[in-house]
Amino acid sequence: MSQFWSPAIQSLVPYTPGEQPKVDGLIKLNTNENPYPPAPAVEAVLREFDTERLRLYPDPDCHALKQALADEAGLSRDQVFVGNGSDEVLALTFMALLRHEQPLLLPETTYSFYNVYIDLFNIDARHIPLTDDYRIDLDAYSSENGGIIFANPNAPTGVGLTLEQISDLLIRNTHSVVVVDEAYVDFGAESASQLVDRYPNLLVTQTFSKSRSLAGMRVGYAYGHPKLIEALERVKNSFNSYPLDMLAQQTAIAALQDRGYFQHCVQQVMDTREWTCEQLTSLGFEVLPSQTNFVFTSHSEVAAAELMQYLRDNRILVRHFTKPGIDNHLRITIGTPDEMTRLIECLKQHPSL
Amino acid sequence: MSQFWSPAIQSLVPYTPGEQPKVDGLIKLNTNENPYPPAPAVEAVLREFDTERLRLYPDPDCHALKQALADEAGLSRDQVFVGNGSDEVLALTFMALLRHEQPLLLPETTYSFYNVYIDLFNIDARHIPLTDDYRIDLDAYSSENGGIIFANPNAPTGVGLTLEQISDLLIRNTHSVVVVDEAYVDFGAESASQLVDRYPNLLVTQTFSKSRSLAGMRVGYAYGHPKLIEALERVKNSFNSYPLDMLAQQTAIAALQDRGYFQHCVQQVMDTREWTCEQLTSLGFEVLPSQTNFVFTSHSEVAAAELMQYLRDNRILVRHFTKPGIDNHLRITIGTPDEMTRLIECLKQHPSL
Repeated sequence: MSQFWSPAIQSLVPYTPGEQPKVDGLIKLNTNENPYPPAPAVEAVLREFDTERLRLYPDPDCHALKQALADEAGLSRDQVFVGNGSDEVLALTFMALLRHEQPLLLPETTYSFYNVYIDLFNIDARHIPLTDDYRIDLDAYSSENGGIIFANPNAPTGVGLTLEQISDLLIRNTHSVVVVDEAYVDFGAESASQLVDRYPNLLVTQTFSKSRSLAGMRVGYAYGHPKLIEALERVKNSFNSYPLDMLAQQTAIAALQDRGYFQHCVQQVMDTREWTCEQLTSLGFEVLPSQTNFVFTSHSEVAAAELMQYLRDNRILVRHFTKPGIDNHLRITIGTPDEMTRLIECLKQHPSL
Repeated sequence: MSQFWSPAIQSLVPYTPGEQPKVDGLIKLNTNENPYPPAPAVEAVLREFDTERLRLYPDPDCHALKQALADEAGLSRDQVFVGNGSDEVLALTFMALLRHEQPLLLPETTYSFYNVYIDLFNIDARHIPLTDDYRIDLDAYSSENGGIIFANPNAPTGVGLTLEQISDLLIRNTHSVVVVDEAYVDFGAESASQLVDRYPNLLVTQTFSKSRSLAGMRVGYAYGHPKLIEALERVKNSFNSYPLDMLAQQTAIAALQDRGYFQHCVQQVMDTREWTCEQLTSLGFEVLPSQTNFVFTSHSEVAAAELMQYLRDNRILVRHFTKPGIDNHLRITIGTPDEMTRLIECLKQHPSL
């Protein structure tokens, strides 16, 4: 701490992203990255880009990228917002749409960055427990509120809601914004983007970091009513006019346009996930039903913290959260079939499994 | 406006960046971009980058880029912060270091984004007029304050302060942070980064957008005491963990390391600036002494707004601010010798010049 710090930041507890180790040869199943490279067209962007143009500012409105995203979702460009990863989109969403007098409602267990934003922007919040089987209990989101946010499928559980459940919540909650964070939606869940035309209080966020294999380029986006998008634009243009550099915009467009490659990679991850779930189950793990590129799992005989350390000692990184209620679970990213085979083989060597 | 907007944002007036027109063939002297391409090593980064790595998150701490910047300034890595352009660095600085009970002091005429941050973060501020010859009057920055910020050289005037003047302010103001925004410092001014070791309340911000010809890649940075940097890291990691994508980090390092190219481009811009100043003066313009890659100029017989429109009609874009006190000035970016020759030739054709 220091006399120079703004008082409001002295008690901040920043988000802790998953480790990005600098040593090679690790099997990295800890940050939900896609095991497959981005679409071939992304490489072509880098090889062919006219470097001289980098002396100029990028398009602050990301016109072409927004149009591509609008086309993808069957929406119009004024229903699209883009930002520097979905984390920046979420940060701007908290500022623009979720700072109200009534408390924000959110799951007790969900993407932990939400609570950092709640502190950063001094938002009153009410946390609603998951059900005993780790599902978001939307029926419990019935009190007066200044907004609702959750991930669907939820993190770190991987469990999804149906569009009917989300529609029902939107109908019961017309007076505030409902934010559905769909970072993982492409791995088997249904996107609420198709509800955007029907509900003016719905904001859907997505990212290129997972299903599009572009975590390294930091591109996230949101779909919503033009009035919600306008609020995000106002805050974005009051914070940083150009958060997406030229190459981020261009590589994202390239990744979006190769639909065949996208579908192939996503299907491969889902197939590997099913194999991994079967293997883990046969080793005595309980595995929550996942619609994401990770599984959330626990073992009744070996503690998660011990398993994490055991895997780490064997050069396999997985994520363990110390938060009460989920501290006996591991979140394991789905890698390549070879990586998951090595994970399972390693677990089989564990003396208690 | 909408019931869904956070009340705090309803009155926001976002920053207006200079126009980025999509038509070709314009002479673009309106956003202070460098007329020369980035260093050749930047192109090599794009051509040789292992695209497969883009599936992974970038280094959230930008370790290598910070080290390169530390080496450049003769400082240590914990005295360096990096962000998505200096605008993001400034936004985080306002959050982390400039929200105090006492008012922030800043020039009445300076980079206009500061006032947007003041509104966004609800900061009490006191604006101090420039002297009659458009200089920042540091003697007037003597009242109790929660921070001081100005650009040096100042924008849009282009006029610089000496390091002695800044040191004197720091000595008189040990109780709050002094932010020196050096976006344009490389075009002939002296950087206060060499004062960082001496004054724990000094933060110096710089950017790759101007002198390094990398506006398209969005990389800014700050030098300061480790305690100030820690405050920025806390807020950054509470907002967006990875604002710099892999290519932004790599291209910035490449641009930084080619010192010869950098010095050549900067010298060329300064030489062209001197020629342009002479030409403008001989056409009856008053030109403020510039230490930047732009000139701030007015003509006693032809209004700035009219000149801007006249140049625009001739496909030359320059920047005109409608703010009282500077609304009869134009800010003209220094382009290539050929572009500036065409500007001067065009002005010579104006019936009143």
